[in-house]
Amino acid sequence: MPGPFTLGEIASRLGGRVAGDAQLLIRQVGSLEHAGPDQITFLSDGRHSAKLAATRAAAIILAPENEKLTARPRIVADKPYAYFAKVSQLFNRAVRQEPGVHPSAVVSKTASLGKGVSIGAGCVVGDGVTIGDDCCLYPRVVIYPNCSLGKRVILHSGVVIGADGFGIAPEEGRWVKIPQIGGVRIGDDVEIGANTTIDRGALDDTVIEEGVKLDNQIQVAHNVRIGAHTAIAACTGIAGSADIGRHCIIGGAAMIHGHIKIADHVKVSAGTLISRSLTKPGTYTGIYPFDEHQAWKRGAVRLRRLAKGKKED
Amino acid sequence: MPGPFTLGEIASRLGGRVAGDAQLLIRQVGSLEHAGPDQITFLSDGRHSAKLAATRAAAIILAPENEKLTARPRIVADKPYAYFAKVSQLFNRAVRQEPGVHPSAVVSKTASLGKGVSIGAGCVVGDGVTIGDDCCLYPRVVIYPNCSLGKRVILHSGVVIGADGFGIAPEEGRWVKIPQIGGVRIGDDVEIGANTTIDRGALDDTVIEEGVKLDNQIQVAHNVRIGAHTAIAACTGIAGSADIGRHCIIGGAAMIHGHIKIADHVKVSAGTLISRSLTKPGTYTGIYPFDEHQAWKRGAVRLRRLAKGKKED
Amino acid sequence: MPGPFTLGEIASRLGGRVAGDAQLLIRQVGSLEHAGPDQITFLSDGRHSAKLAATRAAAIILAPENEKLTARPRIVADKPYAYFAKVSQLFNRAVRQEPGVHPSAVVSKTASLGKGVSIGAGCVVGDGVTIGDDCCLYPRVVIYPNCSLGKRVILHSGVVIGADGFGIAPEEGRWVKIPQIGGVRIGDDVEIGANTTIDRGALDDTVIEEGVKLDNQIQVAHNVRIGAHTAIAACTGIAGSADIGRHCIIGGAAMIHGHIKIADHVKVSAGTLISRSLTKPGTYTGIYPFDEHQAWKRGAVRLRRLAKGKKED
Repeated sequence: MPGPFTLGEIASRLGGRVAGDAQLLIRQVGSLEHAGPDQITFLSDGRHSAKLAATRAAAIILAPENEKLTARPRIVADKPYAYFAKVSQLFNRAVRQEPGVHPSAVVSKTASLGKGVSIGAGCVVGDGVTIGDDCCLYPRVVIYPNCSLGKRVILHSGVVIGADGFGIAPEEGRWVKIPQIGGVRIGDDVEIGANTTIDRGALDDTVIEEGVKLDNQIQVAHNVRIGAHTAIAACTGIAGSADIGRHCIIGGAAMIHGHIKIADHVKVSAGTLISRSLTKPGTYTGIYPFDEHQAWKRGAVRLRRLAKGKKED
Repeated sequence: MPGPFTLGEIASRLGGRVAGDAQLLIRQVGSLEHAGPDQITFLSDGRHSAKLAATRAAAIILAPENEKLTARPRIVADKPYAYFAKVSQLFNRAVRQEPGVHPSAVVSKTASLGKGVSIGAGCVVGDGVTIGDDCCLYPRVVIYPNCSLGKRVILHSGVVIGADGFGIAPEEGRWVKIPQIGGVRIGDDVEIGANTTIDRGALDDTVIEEGVKLDNQIQVAHNVRIGAHTAIAACTGIAGSADIGRHCIIGGAAMIHGHIKIADHVKVSAGTLISRSLTKPGTYTGIYPFDEHQAWKRGAVRLRRLAKGKKED
Repeated sequence: MPGPFTLGEIASRLGGRVAGDAQLLIRQVGSLEHAGPDQITFLSDGRHSAKLAATRAAAIILAPENEKLTARPRIVADKPYAYFAKVSQLFNRAVRQEPGVHPSAVVSKTASLGKGVSIGAGCVVGDGVTIGDDCCLYPRVVIYPNCSLGKRVILHSGVVIGADGFGIAPEEGRWVKIPQIGGVRIGDDVEIGANTTIDRGALDDTVIEEGVKLDNQIQVAHNVRIGAHTAIAACTGIAGSADIGRHCIIGGAAMIHGHIKIADHVKVSAGTLISRSLTKPGTYTGIYPFDEHQAWKRGAVRLRRLAKGKKED
């Protein structure tokens, strides 16, 4: 574990301004509620001032407009959350698995591995796969043949890259399988959460551009493109050939229809189904509000009558 | 396989009252529809009396108010379903995997295993993991470093415990990764279904209390707490720092927003998105009712007009 | 890689009518946008005529009514998409993994494997499992004991067959586990996508009939039956004892309640929750339409007032 660092050393590495004792020694980061007396925490929002008053943390990272909310030693930074992320990286490695191929991993002789790659226990890497420098595959990742990863890609356990897309054609009451001959191309600095699946393309490739962050249990169907620096929360499903822009933020358990195009800088709320293309940036939502069960039931009946054009009784 | 047992032996072990031949020998449990002549079944609900009349089962477990619905040998018990569960445990082991570590499993030398632990083929157990007595990890479970399981925990295949939470901070159009330095703490008697994922905490731990039952393909984000004896059905997603009470029942494919608090004894219906804290016990629902497609489409258009405040035409 | 074939050879194997140079040599299939000059593509829909005009493909498969949309060599077929699927199978193997059991797979001595079976790296096959001829298990599939696969079944990575169903009975604030003693029976020609889970039955079996196609990350609970030739898109959850008919098509992220029956030839739209039995064929939908966030919020408030029977203000 690196460190310790004084507040002054932190600010000289990462910027920001120290208020209070710059010689204060910090050993780790912590939460407002549980940080100990040699730890630094952060305040993302002035509304947490009660927690701030009660914290035992040695020092706090906060925004200029909140500087006066505490008299403790602090670092004033414009974006306290991003600043805190970098402080945490000073004290902790973001990737904890050592470079090297675990002896229980099965890596094809025709796969190409960059420098500093880490492949965990039980991983399977298929023929013709390319893995860039400093990638980390946690245990039990599978990469099917002929897919590629850029540099510094992190794949968490249970990720499956390059399984067949759901390509079937109906014929006389049966389904004919369409061989999925495209691949998957993943750019630099992508991170993919546990048990997420990204299917190979039917003819052309499925593409995840640089800097994309995918949470757990996301399904990315064949021939999807996800634009650079887009972040998608857990349990989201993206249907075939959807084209998602750059710098989008998609909430958890969202659903994106196939063959639609989403502009750059779009936000989709959690639980929302997007059924047509979105050409303008903005936030889009489609959630049916919950209620206490009996109230929901009465309301649903009444709305159903209205939806059918009946007058209220 | 244990057994056989007579009806009288069953009742002397588990309670309840025998009506009819107490010497009747039972070899196994079965369903109302398919139980054979040496099997015992149960009636959960008087409305299934037609199936009861047709059953070939040797004996039936039922509630006092349904005792007269059949003349077959029977055990009368207040909670026939829970009673049946325990009868089935008499005849069948709930966990079928033998104790011991499969030679293909990869278990860190710094992990601590209790007595009677069973670790299946292809499992990966990281550094500093603690596993309590009589836990069972079915094949291909992954536990990242520094997580802990209580006693008698059952993890089904594909479960991933302790992968990084989705902690990223925006900065100038890119995402900065926040090292996830918390762990996962799982209490006694927890069971977790296939391919469910539970992320490690960002700073503090993610906590699953004793007796919690999670179905398959559930996503539990970082710093969630799930209170004791809560049961959650498949495909549910729980966002970061949600705090779920004890004795809750959450239906399948539900979605729980982050940073909210749900009281003890809350029930959430399947497919419902909970977007704010729930302070009172009760059942909560938010489902948009389905309809035949054309009727749905006409209704959706009409509701949209109403939602926009337009008069009906 | 098989081939090349002339247009005439393709038509003599698969039917259809050649228009243009029957001696034209084809080496591979491709998409309208990216096919090269020795590749054949297809036109599924006359609305793509702009892409058709720009294609560099050597030849096009299209329907009789679209034959005149291009002067390029072409094959005229009634169902261009199914025809294309079979042309692609001519040039590409649908299953790319060689027969045989990978040395890192763990297969019980009491499992029974048919001819030509392929079991990938890291798979685990339990006691008493039966696997029919020409099945393919991609890496890291788990099959629990006493489940059976028909012939030509394809299981993608991360699939879990036969984990315990979610069978728990409440008793005095705790949950009693019900041993899951049924199995899973899967018919011929079934394909199952990555990380999909199919639970074993509680007492009787869970049944997937012949020709069923399941996409990724689908959850099939205990005692479900899925009728022959039904196709289900990704992220769908099917609750316990649901009985789904033959030739159904279920969209992505749909949810099917337990203990209901769905007729043959039913279509369910993506994101729709089906909460009662469907006795007639047809398409069923229940999606709450999304909108720009502020418009959604205003509309949701207004609908909530209407649902509560209040007059508009």
